[in-house]
Amino acid sequence: MTKQDTLNAKLNIKDISFINTIRSIAVIGSSKRRDYSFLRRHAELFKGPVYAVHPTATEIPRFDDGTQNKIYKSVDLIPEDIDYVFISTPASQILDVIDGCIKKGVKLASIFTAGLADLGTEEGIQLEKELINKLNNSMRILGPNCLGLFYPKRGISWRGNFPAKPGNIGFIAQSGGICDLVVFNGEEMGIHFSKVFSYGNGNDLDVVDLLYFLSNDPETDIILCYLEGMNDKRGDALRQVLAQNKKPIICLKAGKSQSAVIAAKTHTASIAGEYHIWKAIFNQYNVIEVKSVEHLISAAKLIDCYGVFKLKSAAVLVLSGGYGVVLTDLLEEEGISVPPFSPEIQNQIDQKFKVVGTGTKNPLDVSGHLRNLKLMHELIELALSDTVIDGIITVLPAFYLNYGSRDGRRTQFSSFEKPVAKIMSLGHKYNKPIIIIMQGTTFPKTRENFAKEFAKIKVPMFRDPYEFISLLPKISKYSEEVKKRK
Amino acid sequence: MTKQDTLNAKLNIKDISFINTIRSIAVIGSSKRRDYSFLRRHAELFKGPVYAVHPTATEIPRFDDGTQNKIYKSVDLIPEDIDYVFISTPASQILDVIDGCIKKGVKLASIFTAGLADLGTEEGIQLEKELINKLNNSMRILGPNCLGLFYPKRGISWRGNFPAKPGNIGFIAQSGGICDLVVFNGEEMGIHFSKVFSYGNGNDLDVVDLLYFLSNDPETDIILCYLEGMNDKRGDALRQVLAQNKKPIICLKAGKSQSAVIAAKTHTASIAGEYHIWKAIFNQYNVIEVKSVEHLISAAKLIDCYGVFKLKSAAVLVLSGGYGVVLTDLLEEEGISVPPFSPEIQNQIDQKFKVVGTGTKNPLDVSGHLRNLKLMHELIELALSDTVIDGIITVLPAFYLNYGSRDGRRTQFSSFEKPVAKIMSLGHKYNKPIIIIMQGTTFPKTRENFAKEFAKIKVPMFRDPYEFISLLPKISKYSEEVKKRK
Repeated sequence: MTKQDTLNAKLNIKDISFINTIRSIAVIGSSKRRDYSFLRRHAELFKGPVYAVHPTATEIPRFDDGTQNKIYKSVDLIPEDIDYVFISTPASQILDVIDGCIKKGVKLASIFTAGLADLGTEEGIQLEKELINKLNNSMRILGPNCLGLFYPKRGISWRGNFPAKPGNIGFIAQSGGICDLVVFNGEEMGIHFSKVFSYGNGNDLDVVDLLYFLSNDPETDIILCYLEGMNDKRGDALRQVLAQNKKPIICLKAGKSQSAVIAAKTHTASIAGEYHIWKAIFNQYNVIEVKSVEHLISAAKLIDCYGVFKLKSAAVLVLSGGYGVVLTDLLEEEGISVPPFSPEIQNQIDQKFKVVGTGTKNPLDVSGHLRNLKLMHELIELALSDTVIDGIITVLPAFYLNYGSRDGRRTQFSSFEKPVAKIMSLGHKYNKPIIIIMQGTTFPKTRENFAKEFAKIKVPMFRDPYEFISLLPKISKYSEEVKKRK
Repeated sequence: MTKQDTLNAKLNIKDISFINTIRSIAVIGSSKRRDYSFLRRHAELFKGPVYAVHPTATEIPRFDDGTQNKIYKSVDLIPEDIDYVFISTPASQILDVIDGCIKKGVKLASIFTAGLADLGTEEGIQLEKELINKLNNSMRILGPNCLGLFYPKRGISWRGNFPAKPGNIGFIAQSGGICDLVVFNGEEMGIHFSKVFSYGNGNDLDVVDLLYFLSNDPETDIILCYLEGMNDKRGDALRQVLAQNKKPIICLKAGKSQSAVIAAKTHTASIAGEYHIWKAIFNQYNVIEVKSVEHLISAAKLIDCYGVFKLKSAAVLVLSGGYGVVLTDLLEEEGISVPPFSPEIQNQIDQKFKVVGTGTKNPLDVSGHLRNLKLMHELIELALSDTVIDGIITVLPAFYLNYGSRDGRRTQFSSFEKPVAKIMSLGHKYNKPIIIIMQGTTFPKTRENFAKEFAKIKVPMFRDPYEFISLLPKISKYSEEVKKRK
């Protein structure tokens, strides 16, 4: 045993690295009334065999997993090894099902079944306790009251229509519904996932174990976390995991207000705990805290594109002088300055670009020049090369880039997105972020095409400054702390 | 002269009510290099005659306005009356052009020409002064340095692809670029405009005159305003206009930070002024202040749907218990409570709907029941009928409502949007707002179809709570002040 192993054992930090090699799945107790949807969903993307286990079903229509539609009464009757099971039997059957899984040598079970500790009744709490006692470290559990594991690289997914493309973002959430929102919304933003864990009541695997796993998982670069609460006794283990972690962790701690604390308790039997304690932990271990589900996604997108970065002074490039003024107000409110360019850069900008009615200062009103790609390239490069500038925020209005009027007559900009994307990728060359705002618009198709192009080159595009502005100082602070602590 | 007329004359508040009867347009000096785009744009939607005025052009290709492509050297040579002109001649010609307009009896001119006071030079400032002196109240001017008038009902538009549908929202902005963004973005949000004024340097018609007009305009119910600054001498007139105004005014005051103040000066020659003075005026006259262009649109949308409303306590209906906890935190942070339902309502909810793993408290986790339309209808109606609840915030995830997997196989919910919209329109029956969040998603088509359906029945739908949550206390405060001041 390594020193780390000894420490982990002492702190009861569980090892689930076997997840990366899951080869077979069984879905236990999928509901006939819901047309065995959990079974079908798991079979949709998984590349290996998916077995159906059901106590009464004799036939599952249209279920074709290459196993001749055979249904097993119990998981231990399956002739092959089973690495992972998804369980949705009624709570009354859960103990028997778990016995079968342990007997079979299953490594990980996700338990969708609710009505245990989350009920809040003595009976429910007792049942969950019995369930956990049975495990005795021979098997690991996500849940109860969860959706389990989404692991796109191996095709493990509780939804058949989840995006199949694997990525480098790990996500841990007590709430399965939030996992759904983050995965679907994330795909629109162009972020993809290594592993997503919905862990519900979290009485076996909890935030500590899952953080430990993702923190050491070679397939994960950025960790997102939605947290309602945690068992008080896990404090030392959590601190240990956070202390050794080297990856950015972005956390949404829910249950801060009184009503939300009560809701969290009903939702996943969580004691939301004293928020100021969490706040102190986040601060101590350099965890980036956000306040909305949407900001979890935005922060992941920003860091996925540029790594962790410092953005304390920005150049603002706009097509509307007025929008530049507003954006400057919003940035300075968040402590990000919009300083004048350095004199030598200012001279060059003045020379290249001097039009009546637009400004050549920062914010820079590029006005009608957005389509002059050579000039845009030069301006962006000048701004990026200025040592007083950490990055660029730019506004590209879709109406200015659109492929034509709504009646389809004008089409002159139909191949505009690739050259614009090429310019915007200059941020990577200078190692300074360029962040794009393209608002909601009458021309959604234009917006969609640009979004795809920017996603390809890892340039973040938002609709609304509120989607990301307040995240910039948080990421800057994270980045500075990382340097300081080295 | 009425008492009001006398007061207006004393305060130099200009009358532009003639705008509602503009019958003819001339576009003066449209640039050949830009293919006479301002001429073409104005001709696209206008229902009456649009005349071309150009000092040198002899032919304008593909310009067909029913006037046999005749180009006049000067506006006073046009044989018909001209009510409105749009001017984009170089600054050097502007005084002669204005002379011609006055001679012709033009009522309103929008001057796109920049390079006057906005230049900041003594020459520019002097030129603008001469221009204004010429007017002598015989003609009114928007600008210089502006895009002028968008009046969809009469088809007056500086962009040919602006939405043609007239609405009830008036918008005043110094920045033409912001007008563009608000009009296009507004259409996606389902709001439409009575009149939009881009007034640039604002040396003749300014925010005071335009507010006075919209405040008395029968076609306008809600007034939006983007403001950089104002001539100090207009303070009394502004107070007078605000004092008599009965409509909600939503204002974005730009140029709050130091860098933004400088930018505003370059942009429209505005002295952004002391922000605390503006703040005091907004407070005294019950003006709703917002901080972003996007919030202007969101606030207009909310008030357009429900009028001004009080929302100090909300029911939260979600499909994800976790999202309900987060939303509750965000609402309570803004001072909006998420209280328990009244005991009798709670009893009825418990009876109708009791499923293991979801909560029947507020926030209410409706989980898999979203598609049970009868139950959803009953739940929404119960929540609305509760006297402790002012309104409902609900989250409809597109992935749950989507028309099928991405391969197009599943299509069972293809007519789901109309019945859901019918339920969501119950807010109007109870005179309590229902606000919907549908996040970004892998299923944009689903989202788009729901957006259209909700727009029809005037129910606001957003992507992200940050788009509207901070506006709710502002609208509540406005509503309470209106009652108090009656």
